[in-house]
Amino acid sequence: MKLIIAIVHDDDSNKLVEKLTEANFGITKLASTGGFLKSGNTTLLVGTKEEKIDEVISIIKNVCKTRKEITTTSPMIGDNANFIPIPIEVVVGGATIFVVDIERFEKA
Amino acid sequence: MKLIIAIVHDDDSNKLVEKLTEANFGITKLASTGGFLKSGNTTLLVGTKEEKIDEVISIIKNVCKTRKEITTTSPMIGDNANFIPIPIEVVVGGATIFVVDIERFEKA
Amino acid sequence: MKLIIAIVHDDDSNKLVEKLTEANFGITKLASTGGFLKSGNTTLLVGTKEEKIDEVISIIKNVCKTRKEITTTSPMIGDNANFIPIPIEVVVGGATIFVVDIERFEKA
Ligand code: NI
Ligand code: NI
Ligand code: NI
Repeated sequence: MKLIIAIVHDDDSNKLVEKLTEANFGITKLASTGGFLKSGNTTLLVGTKEEKIDEVISIIKNVCKTRKEITTTSPMIGDNANFIPIPIEVVVGGATIFVVDIERFEKA
Repeated sequence: MKLIIAIVHDDDSNKLVEKLTEANFGITKLASTGGFLKSGNTTLLVGTKEEKIDEVISIIKNVCKTRKEITTTSPMIGDNANFIPIPIEVVVGGATIFVVDIERFEKA
Repeated sequence: MKLIIAIVHDDDSNKLVEKLTEANFGITKLASTGGFLKSGNTTLLVGTKEEKIDEVISIIKNVCKTRKEITTTSPMIGDNANFIPIPIEVVVGGATIFVVDIERFEKA
């Protein structure tokens, strides 16, 4: 038995929980708070058999992969008249995945 | 030193914290959020010596064991007149318990 | 790769996140709730290479070390007239630190 601790961006967490649930993995979602981190994170706990780890990691990487998105700059307040929106590229997504060995596993 | 990560139903968490505290175990309670899970969960962290693990697990299983409760159905809104409450059996409780080895343990 | 799970008092958590971030450690801050614990705690997850563990633990111990502070008693409500504030010593801070081995570490 292994425990996968995955730290993902809030934006990706609902889709990830959905995909992992569809694949029959049991998930616990912990609320992470921002601190000095740039944006909100969600920490997921997934307990699974060793032979299923690759499947879980592959689902996480697929949903949460770092990708570039085009967004446009917003005008400063009070500076709307001559504002020309400029498309900028932002990096979204990303996940940090830790796999921990479980010495003992019990269900009540 | 071992770390016990226990995921329990919100309903059972206060009683469990009380019982573990009475037995002198130090507990950290993390807020879990629902996601696609049916109801709210609480994740507890309990650090303990190897020889006390059975005691912790036995307390968790005792407080959180899956049990059946009889509840009655509620009338749909606007459909009260002819409503006959039907007793239904629901499963409550349950816990998922992971035991992890701690390589190093420090107190500040 | 190791995962450091540190449970610290809320009062110390912002300074600790700041110090760890300055030292280039990636941190995830989980919201802990009180339960029967006397005051609020924050649980931090820090993933790091084995050779950096001492540095992380030393930063945590430095920021969160148990120390005594002098506070003064507050008058009971309705009992202000003859109240003489008495300085009392309270213990603040403290941290519980667990180091867990990470079998596999992945970034998406
Ligand atoms: Ni990110
Ligand atoms: Ni359950
Ligand atoms: Ni304390």
